[in-house]
Amino acid sequence: MKTYYFDYNATTPLAPEVRAAMEPFLTEHFGNPSSLHGLGKQAARAVREARKKTALLLGAEHENEIIFTSGGTESNNTAIRSALASFPDKKQIVTSSVEHSSVYRVFRQLEKEGYTVHWLKVDRQGLLDLAELDECLSEQTALVSIMTANNETGAVFPAFKIAGKVRARGILFHVDAVQSVGKIPIRLKNSRIDFLSLSAHKFYGPKGVGALYVRQGAPFHPLILGGAQERGRRAGTENVAGIAGLGEACEMALREMEAESERLLRLRGLFESRAQETIPDIAINAEEAERLPNTSNIQFKNADGEALFFALDQKGVCASNGSACMSGSREPSRVLKALGLSDETANMSLRFSFGRSTTETDIEEGVALLSETVQRIREIPLEKQHSHV
Amino acid sequence: MKTYYFDYNATTPLAPEVRAAMEPFLTEHFGNPSSLHGLGKQAARAVREARKKTALLLGAEHENEIIFTSGGTESNNTAIRSALASFPDKKQIVTSSVEHSSVYRVFRQLEKEGYTVHWLKVDRQGLLDLAELDECLSEQTALVSIMTANNETGAVFPAFKIAGKVRARGILFHVDAVQSVGKIPIRLKNSRIDFLSLSAHKFYGPKGVGALYVRQGAPFHPLILGGAQERGRRAGTENVAGIAGLGEACEMALREMEAESERLLRLRGLFESRAQETIPDIAINAEEAERLPNTSNIQFKNADGEALFFALDQKGVCASNGSACMSGSREPSRVLKALGLSDETANMSLRFSFGRSTTETDIEEGVALLSETVQRIREIPLEKQHSHV
Repeated sequence: MKTYYFDYNATTPLAPEVRAAMEPFLTEHFGNPSSLHGLGKQAARAVREARKKTALLLGAEHENEIIFTSGGTESNNTAIRSALASFPDKKQIVTSSVEHSSVYRVFRQLEKEGYTVHWLKVDRQGLLDLAELDECLSEQTALVSIMTANNETGAVFPAFKIAGKVRARGILFHVDAVQSVGKIPIRLKNSRIDFLSLSAHKFYGPKGVGALYVRQGAPFHPLILGGAQERGRRAGTENVAGIAGLGEACEMALREMEAESERLLRLRGLFESRAQETIPDIAINAEEAERLPNTSNIQFKNADGEALFFALDQKGVCASNGSACMSGSREPSRVLKALGLSDETANMSLRFSFGRSTTETDIEEGVALLSETVQRIREIPLEKQHSHV
Repeated sequence: MKTYYFDYNATTPLAPEVRAAMEPFLTEHFGNPSSLHGLGKQAARAVREARKKTALLLGAEHENEIIFTSGGTESNNTAIRSALASFPDKKQIVTSSVEHSSVYRVFRQLEKEGYTVHWLKVDRQGLLDLAELDECLSEQTALVSIMTANNETGAVFPAFKIAGKVRARGILFHVDAVQSVGKIPIRLKNSRIDFLSLSAHKFYGPKGVGALYVRQGAPFHPLILGGAQERGRRAGTENVAGIAGLGEACEMALREMEAESERLLRLRGLFESRAQETIPDIAINAEEAERLPNTSNIQFKNADGEALFFALDQKGVCASNGSACMSGSREPSRVLKALGLSDETANMSLRFSFGRSTTETDIEEGVALLSETVQRIREIPLEKQHSHV
């Protein structure tokens, strides 16, 4: 059975170029970058090269603004905890109501630790009201943390504009760019962003490696202490193969992003128009927002999202139901609810995200499978659909 | 030029079996274990299998006592911070004076945060005085953290005996087993160890992945928050290939450790006796301690360790000078100083650590190269040796 992988926002396959770049460090070049002998130096060189490539993709001014981590989640946790350690007396922090769990959960924990969190609302299109941001900032605000683009809806936030507002008030600013790096261009030099998180596996690099950009001059407190790796900012023997893979993924993105974004935008347009032509009663969530070119979140009225998800899976179509479906409980997407969807309509939504291997044929065939599956599910009374999972 | 890699305690090459086990997850099986579609489930299965194998090597009672992390350093940081979060009112903590930097630096930081640290001394053989441990424990002690074996000298601490003493007082007990897992057997079931850290790349697994054992029932507070991975105990998309590699490394260790330990013990005996036969004025650090079978730390009187290290490197012999040699400053090994060595004798010491690919021929040839190098260095007046680096 052919697989239609429409879940690139969850993770991407390794690009063959990335795999090739990792290979030497999984075989003969196995040294520890902290070792001063030849094998160690070889590994240290690979880490240095990858740092250059990562800085280049981000348009960072200095290579040493890049700290390699184990992934986006660690980067987010590190940036937030670091910012608060820099201003221990300021107890107000700001984020949006649609952040990824690796920011959301940290902020929830910080509430328990005595912080006051201002959760910025989004409108029906998943977009922020910048006036609300202006109003909530105060002398007591330590940090603003905002994603550059939403993982579920694809809605893009104006990070650079927000950076200007936040930094003008002397407040540290972190962006979770996990979902946008490699998809839309970024240029950190002369921006007012202090911290930026990214994850390799979201753009054809390996799982288990990411980076945190820390603007030169920004105060910094490490989350993980130990050896002197990453100039004392992140201890632990470097994941050399993973880091080399991340570097290669960055280089590839820099080379291909522009053309690939256009291609994906065209494919998504095809997907959405075909879906609207062939499937009655659907709505595209955050349709009017500027969105990541590869992301489409669709509401199928009178169809249980989870039933639809598993029926599609059986036909080889991999989507995402964007909700944590744990042991029978059904928690509707926190993000879609923030857009104003009811529990019921949130649970009727699925995310489709496309990528490098997606072809026009995949889209045409995928929509055909989607169309027949939605029809079949809708033939079952809504209240009984979920028991068909 | 042939390479004599005598630095297995710094890192090990990937075993071919491990590389093979990782391969599918670097290619077609690229799903995110949190995805509920087929590709995701495949990845989740791999993580589950690796968890079983890791639990088996450790003799853990329950698979879910294993939490995958990005490596030994993260595991150590997590265990220590978690233990303190469990007893926020207890402000005394205990560790040894010869811990790895990933424990040492955290304890130094904790001193700044108001904790009183009892640093257990070691004797000339690098061994603890258990009476000192007994005496320093109190009602106010939150945690004891001790390594199972020292990375520089190889000296083995009686972790299980210590566990009994510590747990009898209701104090949490963490062991940093990074240097011993895969080298000497461990059986956690019915032990009184609460937390144990390990790192894959120290026993033929990949860099960037490790595990933390948390005894079922022990209180736990995650260091990294976000998604529900690892049952909410360590957020972030799993490094599936790395975890599969760690699992395979564990399986391999379980199968080969006994015979391999004997072989390494014999090779180290050969190394040390040949060195003593052919090189005058040497001493083996921690010689009388029970040591890891693969580790030999040698003091070369009247020879500058760093000069020796680099001269050996030029002949293809990779050793470790165990000291952080950063931008010209020479910090003698904190561990060797704790054994009572002077700055000068500590700086005359090198570590040699052997492994799976080391042969008898390597040992014989390696000692011959070592012998001629030591002789050549000693021909230079001691005070001028270092400028030859």
